[in-house]
Amino acid sequence: MFDILFSHIQNKVDLSDEEKTELQSFFISKKLRKKQYLLQEGEICKYISFVSKGLLKSYFVDEKANEHINMFAFEGWWISDFNSFIHQEKAVLNIEAIEETELLMITYEDYENMMLKIPVMDRYFRILYQNSLVTKDYRLIVSNSFTAEEKYIQFAKKNPEVIQRIPHSLIASYLGLAPETVSRIRRKISLQKLDSDQ
Amino acid sequence: MFDILFSHIQNKVDLSDEEKTELQSFFISKKLRKKQYLLQEGEICKYISFVSKGLLKSYFVDEKANEHINMFAFEGWWISDFNSFIHQEKAVLNIEAIEETELLMITYEDYENMMLKIPVMDRYFRILYQNSLVTKDYRLIVSNSFTAEEKYIQFAKKNPEVIQRIPHSLIASYLGLAPETVSRIRRKISLQKLDSDQ
Repeated sequence: MFDILFSHIQNKVDLSDEEKTELQSFFISKKLRKKQYLLQEGEICKYISFVSKGLLKSYFVDEKANEHINMFAFEGWWISDFNSFIHQEKAVLNIEAIEETELLMITYEDYENMMLKIPVMDRYFRILYQNSLVTKDYRLIVSNSFTAEEKYIQFAKKNPEVIQRIPHSLIASYLGLAPETVSRIRRKISLQKLDSDQ
Repeated sequence: MFDILFSHIQNKVDLSDEEKTELQSFFISKKLRKKQYLLQEGEICKYISFVSKGLLKSYFVDEKANEHINMFAFEGWWISDFNSFIHQEKAVLNIEAIEETELLMITYEDYENMMLKIPVMDRYFRILYQNSLVTKDYRLIVSNSFTAEEKYIQFAKKNPEVIQRIPHSLIASYLGLAPETVSRIRRKISLQKLDSDQ
């Protein structure tokens, strides 16, 4: 279960065997059934979780009870309500398993202790957050500047496996689009593809 | 000029005098006049820059020549086209001084070298990026789920000094709203305020 975590870390920094043993001691494991919650809004997000198997979504529910997807987390991703985790304040996000899921979880206190005991983890998270900021910057640009069709096409190009694995209604929510808009765009694209295949 | 950088770093981590001297050697300084560019789209963003004085904006220009503000950077903030800086690819953002500005700049190569030579800087940037992710997560939630009026009011509450210091047209662009929409909301708020003051 730790293999995928170690391999994810070692893609970015070196870890000695002693550091691996130490690292393991900070985490607990958890399994979720499909549709089971990891976090509900209003709770404190006590853990940041590494997905060793499965798939989750985090989402925000607005006053009209519309669900807005914040992110999807596949194997090898970290997930939390990050503001709630870092500041130990009430969560605004819900986190729910889309598939059967296995997690490695660490509390905020242990997250900080781990960084003090294994300083190379500061470097690991610096690089991880750096990559995450690049992605979020790009998403903000897309969200504020692209048309609905441009948003969907860019997303589909960057995330071909997501398009296969996640229901279209959730992708629409992630992109801030109405499900009918995504259906219309998908029809248009497949018609264009038919045209170009002929 | 380095005092504000050191104090910003020492708010998050400890720095010895030797580390400070070493750190200085990685940076160059630059002054910008009002309206002068630090970066134009299509260039490689060679530096990440710390603002020791002044104010800048980074923005994206869409195909219809509309300007979309990505961020504002005040004294004590870092600014770059982060994707371009990290991957040394072509920038999609423009960065321009809104006021007379003084910067401390570091190249990507020196940024990586600095982290290897002064490992506590990994920790500094881990914490900095962590805070930045919290802010961006919140901005994505706002951008996808709030009405125009909610967006403006939330922004004004969180950034009272920005409202004073930055033209309203730029704030509208940052929030992805039309300038007329922001003017309408501002009129409505000040009428409500008049009502409640009576």
